[in-house]
Amino acid sequence: MNDTRVRGALDAMFRPRSVALVGASDRPGSIGAITLRNLRGGGFAGPLYLVNPRHDAIDGVHVYADAASLPDAPDLAVIATPPGQVPGVIDAFGARGTRAAVVITAGFGELGDAGNALQSQLVERARAHGMRLVGPNCLGLIVPGIGLNASFAQVEPPAGGVAFISQSGALITAVLDWAQPRGIGFSQVISLGDMCDVGFAEAIDDAAADPATRTIVLYVEGMAQGQAFARALRAATRRKPVLALKVGRHAASAKAAHSHTGALAGNDAVYDAVFRRAGVLRLATMADLLDAIETFAFTRPQTGNRLAILTNGGGPGVLATDVVAAAGGTLATISPATTARLDAVLPPTWSRGNPVDIIGDAPAERYAAALNALLDDPAVDALLVLNCPTALTDPVDAARAVADTVRARNGAAPNVYTAWLGEQSAAPARALLRDAHIATYETPDDAVLGFLDGVRSARNGHTVHAEAPAQIVPAPDVAAARAAIAAAIAAGRHWLDAQEVASVLTAYGIPVPASCLADDPASAGRAAAAIGVPVALKIRSQQLTHKSDIGGVVLDLAGGDRVREEATAMLARIRAADPHARIDGFLVQEMVHRPDAYELIVGMHVDEVFGPVVLFGHGGTAVEVLADTSLELPPLDRDRARAQIDRTLVARLLHGYRGRPPVDLDAVASVLVRIGAIAAAHPEIEELDVNPLLADEHGVLALDARIAVR
Amino acid sequence: MNDTRVRGALDAMFRPRSVALVGASDRPGSIGAITLRNLRGGGFAGPLYLVNPRHDAIDGVHVYADAASLPDAPDLAVIATPPGQVPGVIDAFGARGTRAAVVITAGFGELGDAGNALQSQLVERARAHGMRLVGPNCLGLIVPGIGLNASFAQVEPPAGGVAFISQSGALITAVLDWAQPRGIGFSQVISLGDMCDVGFAEAIDDAAADPATRTIVLYVEGMAQGQAFARALRAATRRKPVLALKVGRHAASAKAAHSHTGALAGNDAVYDAVFRRAGVLRLATMADLLDAIETFAFTRPQTGNRLAILTNGGGPGVLATDVVAAAGGTLATISPATTARLDAVLPPTWSRGNPVDIIGDAPAERYAAALNALLDDPAVDALLVLNCPTALTDPVDAARAVADTVRARNGAAPNVYTAWLGEQSAAPARALLRDAHIATYETPDDAVLGFLDGVRSARNGHTVHAEAPAQIVPAPDVAAARAAIAAAIAAGRHWLDAQEVASVLTAYGIPVPASCLADDPASAGRAAAAIGVPVALKIRSQQLTHKSDIGGVVLDLAGGDRVREEATAMLARIRAADPHARIDGFLVQEMVHRPDAYELIVGMHVDEVFGPVVLFGHGGTAVEVLADTSLELPPLDRDRARAQIDRTLVARLLHGYRGRPPVDLDAVASVLVRIGAIAAAHPEIEELDVNPLLADEHGVLALDARIAVR
Repeated sequence: MNDTRVRGALDAMFRPRSVALVGASDRPGSIGAITLRNLRGGGFAGPLYLVNPRHDAIDGVHVYADAASLPDAPDLAVIATPPGQVPGVIDAFGARGTRAAVVITAGFGELGDAGNALQSQLVERARAHGMRLVGPNCLGLIVPGIGLNASFAQVEPPAGGVAFISQSGALITAVLDWAQPRGIGFSQVISLGDMCDVGFAEAIDDAAADPATRTIVLYVEGMAQGQAFARALRAATRRKPVLALKVGRHAASAKAAHSHTGALAGNDAVYDAVFRRAGVLRLATMADLLDAIETFAFTRPQTGNRLAILTNGGGPGVLATDVVAAAGGTLATISPATTARLDAVLPPTWSRGNPVDIIGDAPAERYAAALNALLDDPAVDALLVLNCPTALTDPVDAARAVADTVRARNGAAPNVYTAWLGEQSAAPARALLRDAHIATYETPDDAVLGFLDGVRSARNGHTVHAEAPAQIVPAPDVAAARAAIAAAIAAGRHWLDAQEVASVLTAYGIPVPASCLADDPASAGRAAAAIGVPVALKIRSQQLTHKSDIGGVVLDLAGGDRVREEATAMLARIRAADPHARIDGFLVQEMVHRPDAYELIVGMHVDEVFGPVVLFGHGGTAVEVLADTSLELPPLDRDRARAQIDRTLVARLLHGYRGRPPVDLDAVASVLVRIGAIAAAHPEIEELDVNPLLADEHGVLALDARIAVR
Repeated sequence: MNDTRVRGALDAMFRPRSVALVGASDRPGSIGAITLRNLRGGGFAGPLYLVNPRHDAIDGVHVYADAASLPDAPDLAVIATPPGQVPGVIDAFGARGTRAAVVITAGFGELGDAGNALQSQLVERARAHGMRLVGPNCLGLIVPGIGLNASFAQVEPPAGGVAFISQSGALITAVLDWAQPRGIGFSQVISLGDMCDVGFAEAIDDAAADPATRTIVLYVEGMAQGQAFARALRAATRRKPVLALKVGRHAASAKAAHSHTGALAGNDAVYDAVFRRAGVLRLATMADLLDAIETFAFTRPQTGNRLAILTNGGGPGVLATDVVAAAGGTLATISPATTARLDAVLPPTWSRGNPVDIIGDAPAERYAAALNALLDDPAVDALLVLNCPTALTDPVDAARAVADTVRARNGAAPNVYTAWLGEQSAAPARALLRDAHIATYETPDDAVLGFLDGVRSARNGHTVHAEAPAQIVPAPDVAAARAAIAAAIAAGRHWLDAQEVASVLTAYGIPVPASCLADDPASAGRAAAAIGVPVALKIRSQQLTHKSDIGGVVLDLAGGDRVREEATAMLARIRAADPHARIDGFLVQEMVHRPDAYELIVGMHVDEVFGPVVLFGHGGTAVEVLADTSLELPPLDRDRARAQIDRTLVARLLHGYRGRPPVDLDAVASVLVRIGAIAAAHPEIEELDVNPLLADEHGVLALDARIAVR
């Protein structure tokens, strides 16, 4: 029995004890030759088998003709053959008992129908053998800690704490090349390629469990199914920081991502909600990603947000302060005791505040003395040390003083972030700081943003996972909602009718106006008399979606007779405008007079990648124009719903202001929680909109709503 | 006669033919010694006199004791003596006929009252001699084109097209150090220091007129008077691009800037308006500034906005596309002819679209062939060339191919922007591209932003200066407005009363409701009867500012009797609440029924740095909560006013949407133009608010307004 069956296929993939390279080559510059060089050069301890029917030996090493001739089944097959051969190779290794393969070969999904067919074959063969696949069309897999470099990358990354999981092989080569001179090491580098089998979720789960991984870094273009991804992110961020660069933010680039990987780029706002919910630090650009990697590689978790700035130049201190303020950070207030210590070691012209400007002629000793004073200040959570080149002192001396000071603390002090400005004089100083494992950036702004990445990540760790279960009291009448939905489905209707919508909302305790269906003008008149207050009269038709635009809504009718007359007129009006429209009768609805209530929108739709998503926003007829909305994933609790509300502009109004009391925000939040519960309990619902949801200081009312089912 | 008097003091400052260094020193590392080294090393042709009473000679060069002993009056005195000696030095050189001085010495304004007194002396002495001063507390002045380095900077910048004018000397040293290995040259480097005399305006004027200057770069912390600055910016951008990094965007950093330079940091939103109005490209961070300098140093004016992306890796192409879309750029649509040419030179797997992905194994020749095809495409305004390091090809070869291709075009092709990703392999490639004067950046995002800086700047050049004079028809009744203002001033009132406000607005053709003042309830009743429609009744009092909060406003009263009764009750109510409030009577105002009109705010205030500023926004009682406003500087024309309106969120509503016709936006814009005209004609007005300005499809009405005078 091959014990990889016991270990599990993903363990064999990410921690193989033996590897076969299929398509090993000696042709210089070929992928088979470069991958062979990397595999042999990485220091991998287990057996490495070369496979290629066209060779007996390469560089003195025996080459096997095929899987069958190998002395033992390797844990992992690394495949770099032409695409047409890959299904056969999978079959042969699967038959031998190999449970994991990295398919570097390109020429599948990106080549249209024929390629897709070949890829399907690949997946079927692997499934048949219980085998897991990374790729195809990928750079490969690198696990420096075990000396495994199963890739055709151009650099050999050292072992370290960063797991980099990427949908783009090119991004990997760029990041590894950038990281090398910085001394940043990696625990895993996984090029997911076209993700025909193993995707982000499995790779993230593995990195989250891997004790060597301190930080998980993701490059994401898109995926067809996202729910496992979202679950893996939530689990991973409980244990370590996760950074993500997600492209396809805008329509044009979503198309580029599509043509690049064949993946389905989901709605970016939903990705945003997924990252926020999981506490993932989302970066906007590659430059931001690199700075964030620097931060997490060289700092400990940032335990507070009060930053002290130490500088030998005023302007850069002001620049740094500007970014702290703009990005929501806090400038530390230097304690009086520290100020006294600084008075003793600095010239009288020092700034006597934060930023601590130690003046352009500051020699190395002055840097060390000021840094020591600030590191001892309990009011300081982190230090930013800046240096501008001057003709008066040597930037490298100052860097050495900072490095020595930090090193002497042995990790028992606040994090130190640094920026040595300029290039010529700064380059050797930066190298010196990196050797001392101190995070260093090119500009004051980048350094401050690095610090704030640390703060955000730590805050995510504390708050994101504090999740109270949403309680709905009294318990919803799930059966009643289900019956209403079933009725619409049974009738073959995509949209629930008004009474069914009211039933669903009422079942979940969402207040709706009193209403009644009527088949004809006469019964509409009787219904109005029964409701007993002024009513609105609305046409019922599956075909007429924007009812008010075609005269299908009349408001504020008092008494049964008025309603009967208006219903007759409405019928004539609509039949004249659209003789073929199917009309299902009338809705007679309590007229609601809350002119000062805000019009909000609360909705739910099923995102094709991530499933149900709850929307909140400024509602009414201008909802598309205002575009003032926020998204959240169910399940929601009260605090999360309140936070979702507060991410909109209209929230500023809802909190009340001069002359306007605050809206009953708990009631609004409660509607969000209940909509989330509806999404969870009724997967048949594809779309649900309450617009407007009227809200004022007395509560909420779902004045109009639509529900679509599959 | 000394001919600098004919040339002008600023010409002597920026293009001196002879220079004296006062405080020349041989003490290693001192500012006097470094400045001497820089002055002697720069290659300055004219005579350089050293002045120091404590030396006879330094390094074999004769040192004069004082100004009096010099053989001739130098054009420029560079002063690096202790602060107490500076006024005397100014006096002595002024007496000799020197018209310009750079005061490097620190220890003036930043040291409190004593320092300020010394600085005042400095300025007085200079004025007495008609002498102009740069500084004090500055790094100095560098004009590489004439070999003048009158600074204590650590590097010697080469001559080139960038004029850098900075309030921070530290920023200058950082930028020069960064620019040196990039081969970026400078026409002028001016450290303004504490700006006791020469400020931004004069320096910008000089750089705008200087034929060697292609781009003006500013680092701004703040200033006490800004109108000359704004004028200089408008004039300069007609001739060349102006880039600005302005700090103090947020309260905390404004304070840091204050303590740093002693300058008054103006309201940042007003700076924004000043920059926008002048067509200045404002950068947010130092990293952005450096990238922008790279762009303007190495590209020609960007004549179109259609970008083609050429890449050897899919992911970075997607990243670049993302930024193009996010920042409002346009991806070029590759023409069919170009696609055919690319088909002929690229492998069949190339992306066949933009980004043009030439695949990871692309050798140098493929880069050259694809680049040539794209440079010939008339549908392409600019090229972004990306390279990801791979083990398959050499990044430096690819860079050389790009450099050779661009060089062969001899400047007759679209701009080429480049980003070679990574570090180890990318560094020599970047150096090679810079040697070929091709703009190169660290990441795809930075490169795209560089391209978009070029686009924005070119657009500014075309549109900002197209300015039609604002016409107000019929002509305003300036005399009537002046009389109302004069009445308030004569009565010693800060706020105009309601009738005076109505007079001013009416004089400028801004519609107001019919209204009448009344001294007592009985005359209020008569006034209401005269107006003849339902009225609002409002208390008049200078002391009660929020009238509606204290029951001082009653709406919708029909008929004289009702008004008389309500006025009596109001009087009693307010007297009970505040027995000492001085009450001036009542305002009886036509009741306006436009429930569907939008409530806007239009205002004007006098900024202490820049003078009058016109504000537009979403109004009503929630105006502070909404914070949805935009600023513009008068004079306004219709187009500028329309653009100002469109910079707010409420504009989306004003343009109309489903069920709502558009507001009469010309009428709203016309109010902005007229408020601008009021600001220009009546400098006594310190503040003017129209809130709400009601606006609907039928026009506008200034329902409530306040005017304060000095």
